[in-house]
Amino acid sequence: MYRTHTCGALRAANVGQTVTLAGWVQKVRNLGAMTFIDLRDRYGLTQIVVEEHSSEETRRTAAELGREFVLQVTGRVIERESKNPKLPTGEIEIAADALVILNRSDVPPFTIEEESDGGDDLRMKYRYLDLRRPPLQRALILRHRMAHAVRTFLDGEGFLEIETPYLIKSTPEGARDFVVPSRMNPNQFYALPQSPQTLKQLLMVAGYDKYFQIVRCFRDEDLRADRQPEFTQIDMEMSFVTEDDVMAMNEGLVKRVFREVLGVDVETPFRRMPYSEAMARYGSDKPDTRFGLELQDVTDVLQESGFAVFKSAVEAGGSVRLINAKGLAGALTRKEIDKLVDVAKTYGAKGLAYTRLTADGVTSSFEKFLSEEEKAALHKAAGAETGDVLLVVADAKNSTVFAALGALRLAVANKCGLIDPDKFNFLWVTDFPFFEYSEEEGRWMAMHHPFTMPRAEDLDKVESDPGSVRALAYDMVLNGCELGGGSIRINDPAVQDRMLKALGFSEERARESFGFLMDAYQYGAPPHGGMAFGFDRMVMLMLKRDSIRDVIAFPKVQNAGEPMSGCPETVEEKQLRELSIAYAPIETEE
Amino acid sequence: MYRTHTCGALRAANVGQTVTLAGWVQKVRNLGAMTFIDLRDRYGLTQIVVEEHSSEETRRTAAELGREFVLQVTGRVIERESKNPKLPTGEIEIAADALVILNRSDVPPFTIEEESDGGDDLRMKYRYLDLRRPPLQRALILRHRMAHAVRTFLDGEGFLEIETPYLIKSTPEGARDFVVPSRMNPNQFYALPQSPQTLKQLLMVAGYDKYFQIVRCFRDEDLRADRQPEFTQIDMEMSFVTEDDVMAMNEGLVKRVFREVLGVDVETPFRRMPYSEAMARYGSDKPDTRFGLELQDVTDVLQESGFAVFKSAVEAGGSVRLINAKGLAGALTRKEIDKLVDVAKTYGAKGLAYTRLTADGVTSSFEKFLSEEEKAALHKAAGAETGDVLLVVADAKNSTVFAALGALRLAVANKCGLIDPDKFNFLWVTDFPFFEYSEEEGRWMAMHHPFTMPRAEDLDKVESDPGSVRALAYDMVLNGCELGGGSIRINDPAVQDRMLKALGFSEERARESFGFLMDAYQYGAPPHGGMAFGFDRMVMLMLKRDSIRDVIAFPKVQNAGEPMSGCPETVEEKQLRELSIAYAPIETEE
Repeated sequence: MYRTHTCGALRAANVGQTVTLAGWVQKVRNLGAMTFIDLRDRYGLTQIVVEEHSSEETRRTAAELGREFVLQVTGRVIERESKNPKLPTGEIEIAADALVILNRSDVPPFTIEEESDGGDDLRMKYRYLDLRRPPLQRALILRHRMAHAVRTFLDGEGFLEIETPYLIKSTPEGARDFVVPSRMNPNQFYALPQSPQTLKQLLMVAGYDKYFQIVRCFRDEDLRADRQPEFTQIDMEMSFVTEDDVMAMNEGLVKRVFREVLGVDVETPFRRMPYSEAMARYGSDKPDTRFGLELQDVTDVLQESGFAVFKSAVEAGGSVRLINAKGLAGALTRKEIDKLVDVAKTYGAKGLAYTRLTADGVTSSFEKFLSEEEKAALHKAAGAETGDVLLVVADAKNSTVFAALGALRLAVANKCGLIDPDKFNFLWVTDFPFFEYSEEEGRWMAMHHPFTMPRAEDLDKVESDPGSVRALAYDMVLNGCELGGGSIRINDPAVQDRMLKALGFSEERARESFGFLMDAYQYGAPPHGGMAFGFDRMVMLMLKRDSIRDVIAFPKVQNAGEPMSGCPETVEEKQLRELSIAYAPIETEE
Repeated sequence: MYRTHTCGALRAANVGQTVTLAGWVQKVRNLGAMTFIDLRDRYGLTQIVVEEHSSEETRRTAAELGREFVLQVTGRVIERESKNPKLPTGEIEIAADALVILNRSDVPPFTIEEESDGGDDLRMKYRYLDLRRPPLQRALILRHRMAHAVRTFLDGEGFLEIETPYLIKSTPEGARDFVVPSRMNPNQFYALPQSPQTLKQLLMVAGYDKYFQIVRCFRDEDLRADRQPEFTQIDMEMSFVTEDDVMAMNEGLVKRVFREVLGVDVETPFRRMPYSEAMARYGSDKPDTRFGLELQDVTDVLQESGFAVFKSAVEAGGSVRLINAKGLAGALTRKEIDKLVDVAKTYGAKGLAYTRLTADGVTSSFEKFLSEEEKAALHKAAGAETGDVLLVVADAKNSTVFAALGALRLAVANKCGLIDPDKFNFLWVTDFPFFEYSEEEGRWMAMHHPFTMPRAEDLDKVESDPGSVRALAYDMVLNGCELGGGSIRINDPAVQDRMLKALGFSEERARESFGFLMDAYQYGAPPHGGMAFGFDRMVMLMLKRDSIRDVIAFPKVQNAGEPMSGCPETVEEKQLRELSIAYAPIETEE
């Protein structure tokens, strides 16, 4: 037996016992007469003491030890002279009778502590050492506990976890697929799933009633701080349900998980807000409601304005909107406002107009173009008082006004410390538009996905006014991040045909892409709907981490590679021949 | 709300209540005055009755119904006149007040019942209908319950479920990998994992102590009844453990799962048997111990025999062994024995010698070549009596003798009904050889995998006598099937180097393939070991199914395709160009 206890187990009550521990050497302090060794495993840290009267062999072994050596210690638990109240094992130490080096270690390339001195690249290359650090251990332990809490909750609610295949048919209308050449079917490919969407809908057709899965999904997109080529999703689907049923079930799930894993009590039901309201008030379909700084529409006040920027925006069908940064004139100096102009431009605005009201007077980038009446009306509408800053965006496209002001809102709140990091503000955003117009593709696309049920009362506008058709779709938002989203699905083949037509699918292409789902709908598809959560992102938010890499054991880095093992890599030509594929010239980015 | 109860919920205690159910129409019986509808969901079946005095609309709707229509029923729960004791809801029925057709169904292409009239191909094409059948529902429900029981047990034992990536570096020395072209790294490929073996070892190096995962694995091999290109594994690894620790933990796991999921009490600890004994007694490294028919070595008795076949086998270093099919002479007629000869030949034996002892006398294919003393010695050694049949195989290769007699054992047991299908016989097979010689590759290969720890006392034979080196490897066997296997792993870089060298890896190739693991071992790798179970196979055995397809929601068929959605399929040239690959000519099988 390698150990009787872990390094986190011993307490004052164990004093007098003879124990054996095994773990890694965190630190060795040689004080001449005595040597102290901090022995570490995933459960904790225990202090070992080698005394002057210890056997020569033990003292010799202690002298050999280095950081990260794997050590087995047998000895008596004794009370510490100077207790360490920060350490759960801080009341005791082990007086070593025998030390056995189970394995040696080279000097690690960076420190293995709460904060490491190693850079990102080095830590990714030696990921197995980085994973020894407490922040990563906490993240992976939380992942485990969270997955288990999710499963236990859904099991209790009668859900079945059903595994769906990873080698599937490619489904268009989403991100880029990873593909897998089939050796047995030359010149043919599987796709790795972007999500099990169609398969879980088939499980509803098959009568499984309540399905879930914690499942890996794959998207061949460029990486960002919160995006990985493979990521984990909590995926669920229910039959014979309305929006309210799905939302209530998922509120219950989140409530349970936050209580069990974080000890945080989340109040349910969550507030709900239609998409149109979220955009109008927060300039975002995933508003952070932990602070105010709401948007105000001042189009009416300024539409006749002498300021050409405002006037032309309104005339082109756009709007003028502002945020009143109440009492923030002190923080938002001219210099800071210049930075905000850059933010607005990043989000497509042509500029940012502002008015700054201080005790020294009013400075404004645009009010000189307004009449006294317009100025007064604007200040009144905005509730402007001394100490405020008005941030105004006008554009011919409302979407640009919303995007810019939504981003400004966040920038101001972050700059001015308006966000309480300990708050968990949950929100449902509902009534998403079914369609959004893609300039790039020159056609209407599905905002959620093509299987989402449109609102019955909007059905007659599918062809005449697609932009106004609302979907039975909902997103769960936490602190300005989309935690998950879902919808009620179409289960009427005629409606599905109509929506695919409106999305520009020819009958042939619809058949080719979704024929199997259409066929299934001919055989008694129940009303159904569901939801999917980004598991990694949820962990990230719970732990308040900035990068998704910090909550995944073996993530990919920027180039979608993994520097520890060195993948991806070239393969032998022989293997490609077997797969009936060949290397092709490398395409340069257009 | 679509329903107040499921179709399996109502009992006599509910009589008098007004309820709403929703489900699929299993059957409609129109008896003129009354119409009976069997309404089905995953929870059960409830009888609906539409009476003569029901509203005209209700009667009209009832007349429209067909098989698999999705129906919502509101009505009163009444006591049945003729109760159905076979049905949990058999004491009641619903007197329908209102019927709402939620969706229609075409006539399904096969019957959706316990036994379907549909052929394999048709049922795979309409898998969503096949999945409505009770045997598939039971299988998927059992999968869910089993996965949950596994997770709950391991969570309770302090294991962490840690997700490992699916896009990884290819690891040689196994089956063929599926590969995934990387768009961002032109002409490079990821591999899909055959198992997370190296990653879970790195998690031990990283100090996670107890890891598990229910994880998908991928092998690009030809399909068989118990093999799929993607399959699910219960994968686990522990640090600071010996073989005994890993085996005890997994016995506990299996005991818990069998009790919770099947209600079967499995006795632990399991019997253990070294590989050499399993081969000698059962001719197999996964013996079915539910019956006897053990092998006997009669080499000593027959080595000087006048029968050239025996003599030459022994002279070439092989053996002569037999099974005494005790009391089975009645069942094993000459005709049956002829079939057994074919079995023996299938497994590489040149033939099968036999002696049949009946009341009418002794008939034998070979005893005429023996002296009377040899005959007597043989009968004595075999314990031959009237009613017995001796089945004898001799070969220059012991492995052929074992394979043939192992197969004959099973064939005789199946033919003669010696196997109790209700028994669950668990067994550990231990002390596997580290190496096995591959004629095809002309070198020694790792029987388990190259990271398995050899027995310390055999280390000095690694170079001089590889065949005799035993590994700290163990398989869990149930009723003649390998449920899972594992080993203690090498954690000493020097030993790992030595074993890779013995396996024919050049230093360069070892570095290229496993460099990251070797590097990790320089930084304090703890003693560790683990195990992996075939999840699908375990479900198959628990449910006594013959095909792995019967326990997987969306399996692949013989050509590794999936006929419902039609995958794999060709992709657009544009997509291949983005991936820097091209279609290549189709290789013909050599």
